[in-house]
Amino acid sequence: MATVESVKDLRTPALIIDLDQVRRNAEGMLERFHNLGVQLRPHMKTHKTLECADIMTGGSRRCIVVSTLAEAAFYADNGYDDILYAYPLPFDKVESCAELSERLSLFHVVVDNCLALQQLKKRPLKQGKVWKVWMKLDCDNGRAGVPHCDPAALQLAHEISDTSGVELTGIYAHCGNTYACQGEEQIKAVARETTMITLQFMEKLKAAGIHGTKSSIGSTPSCSHPVPDMAMLSEVHPGNYIFYDVQQSLIGSCRLEDVAVRVLTRVIGHYPHRNQLLVDCGWAALSHDGGGRLPTGYAIIEGHPEFKLLSMTQEHGRVEPISGKLDFKQFPLGSLLTLMPYHACATAMMHPVYFVHSKGKIIDTWKPTRGW
Amino acid sequence: MATVESVKDLRTPALIIDLDQVRRNAEGMLERFHNLGVQLRPHMKTHKTLECADIMTGGSRRCIVVSTLAEAAFYADNGYDDILYAYPLPFDKVESCAELSERLSLFHVVVDNCLALQQLKKRPLKQGKVWKVWMKLDCDNGRAGVPHCDPAALQLAHEISDTSGVELTGIYAHCGNTYACQGEEQIKAVARETTMITLQFMEKLKAAGIHGTKSSIGSTPSCSHPVPDMAMLSEVHPGNYIFYDVQQSLIGSCRLEDVAVRVLTRVIGHYPHRNQLLVDCGWAALSHDGGGRLPTGYAIIEGHPEFKLLSMTQEHGRVEPISGKLDFKQFPLGSLLTLMPYHACATAMMHPVYFVHSKGKIIDTWKPTRGW
Repeated sequence: MATVESVKDLRTPALIIDLDQVRRNAEGMLERFHNLGVQLRPHMKTHKTLECADIMTGGSRRCIVVSTLAEAAFYADNGYDDILYAYPLPFDKVESCAELSERLSLFHVVVDNCLALQQLKKRPLKQGKVWKVWMKLDCDNGRAGVPHCDPAALQLAHEISDTSGVELTGIYAHCGNTYACQGEEQIKAVARETTMITLQFMEKLKAAGIHGTKSSIGSTPSCSHPVPDMAMLSEVHPGNYIFYDVQQSLIGSCRLEDVAVRVLTRVIGHYPHRNQLLVDCGWAALSHDGGGRLPTGYAIIEGHPEFKLLSMTQEHGRVEPISGKLDFKQFPLGSLLTLMPYHACATAMMHPVYFVHSKGKIIDTWKPTRGW
Repeated sequence: MATVESVKDLRTPALIIDLDQVRRNAEGMLERFHNLGVQLRPHMKTHKTLECADIMTGGSRRCIVVSTLAEAAFYADNGYDDILYAYPLPFDKVESCAELSERLSLFHVVVDNCLALQQLKKRPLKQGKVWKVWMKLDCDNGRAGVPHCDPAALQLAHEISDTSGVELTGIYAHCGNTYACQGEEQIKAVARETTMITLQFMEKLKAAGIHGTKSSIGSTPSCSHPVPDMAMLSEVHPGNYIFYDVQQSLIGSCRLEDVAVRVLTRVIGHYPHRNQLLVDCGWAALSHDGGGRLPTGYAIIEGHPEFKLLSMTQEHGRVEPISGKLDFKQFPLGSLLTLMPYHACATAMMHPVYFVHSKGKIIDTWKPTRGW
């Protein structure tokens, strides 16, 4: 494909990223936690690119979180360091984690059970290095982590702390339960609760003689509206905020105008007998995330709140008015529509390349890493 | 990652493909339409790899269907020819289609409206070539195509046929409405109806003096259970059958044992307080397709009909028993589970590499093309 200058000339479907908005989202988060005196450790899972990581880290290329070992290796291979692999230690990847720990100045792993700790003991690090271990605490999110109210939590922290060759570097909590919130007050309530539970656990550690352990909580909603108590944490680790999306706007993390990502699509068919347009964006370019439950279906069609992206197949999307007759003359074949994704992480995953623009002018292309 | 010999040693999540089953599925379809005397033109959209295309075409590397221009270019660049781009001609890709038409011995495009035909007229092919055009007919599927009962259908066929530099090569129908079927009888009823409508349209063409036009219908359900009338078609174009999936088994296209694709996942967490396992397969490795509406959730966990893949986040899957208490001892941390995907096309899209095995021994890796 010839190089194009304007997003309007891109082949569709295409994932387009507003670089100015990405920078604003990044700077907002950096400033928010700089002001609170808390280290921001941004999560890479939403974009998985080097360029966006540079923006999120303010150019330091240090102190990031990843969701897969493929991301960890990708960033390590490209000069990043201080990488936290925020995933319950997978037993098939211990050797690779050991190699990264030996190669980088700082590589962190996460455990939430004593069998994972045994795996680390069985593979002591070379060069006098120690495993940097964060214990995952489940602060009522209900995914990974030792439940905060379970005595096993303090017991596991003790075991990690007491194991030679292993350091209890931190306590890690993900407040994914903020995704059920609607509005800033509800988000802040979950953020406050998660922070309180985490800080209480830190107190228990100190009382048990375990000192110098860091604490980190995160999620885009809680970090978009931090509560003052979060200043007592060591770190936070949001990720989605770099793009935001329709879901985050509904949760209350952001305004719709803060969303930095779109899928550009073209009209490929007029079907007046069923009052529908076809567009060239199917689930292969948008993902099924959200299940089409928005009043506007699978996405918001920018500038056209009267439209619904009703259904998709692999490469086709059916668009119809929420009510009334579609005026096909307004949407000629070949004309562009712009979709705001429900979930930017899921939509970005579908694209081998992101087109980065400023005010509609293409200025870069970013290629994400993939796989595990 | 070091080369591994057995699927059991793969890093997870991993897409694994049973080559013996793929060959059986391919041979079954080739034989079925060889016996009917109908040309099989297999669709590449499910796998998008060269190796699988070789199997589906019986090594001819000719006569395929693709869903994206990226697939068309990928196959053309790798020695394939006679490629049908089964997509309503996208106006932003006319020049690329022209180049493929000039470069290949046979490259076919699809139109369902006269504005698309205008686009072809505006870009006459060089070297004395003519555009090979299939007109898409909507035989009550309700996606792309001119409705078969609309007089515009015959009119458009005439216009294509009468345009210099353009040839009406065929009539193309997709019977995607077979996806709403349950069981062979319902599938056959839709196949019979689509075939009848298409053949009636072919008769109309002949009556109007338009001769030599081919006909093609397709979908995995209809081509897995062809009706005798389909022998009167020129071609069929199924695709998913190469892998099949849980959805196809529910429709009645195949038995569950015909499914050639799995996602391998490992247990990464035990959470007895909520009677759940975590596995390392989230929507990033499985897709959201099916919406979790199976009795077993988002997939079938092979050998464990008592389990449900209840919910997923990007890299985590929550598994719980449909009823009763989970016996965690049977599923130690690090142990493997095998997921049968609801929709193989959607699951394959999530993987940058497929691990191909025979009886559990890895014998190849296939890399799909991506993008548009």
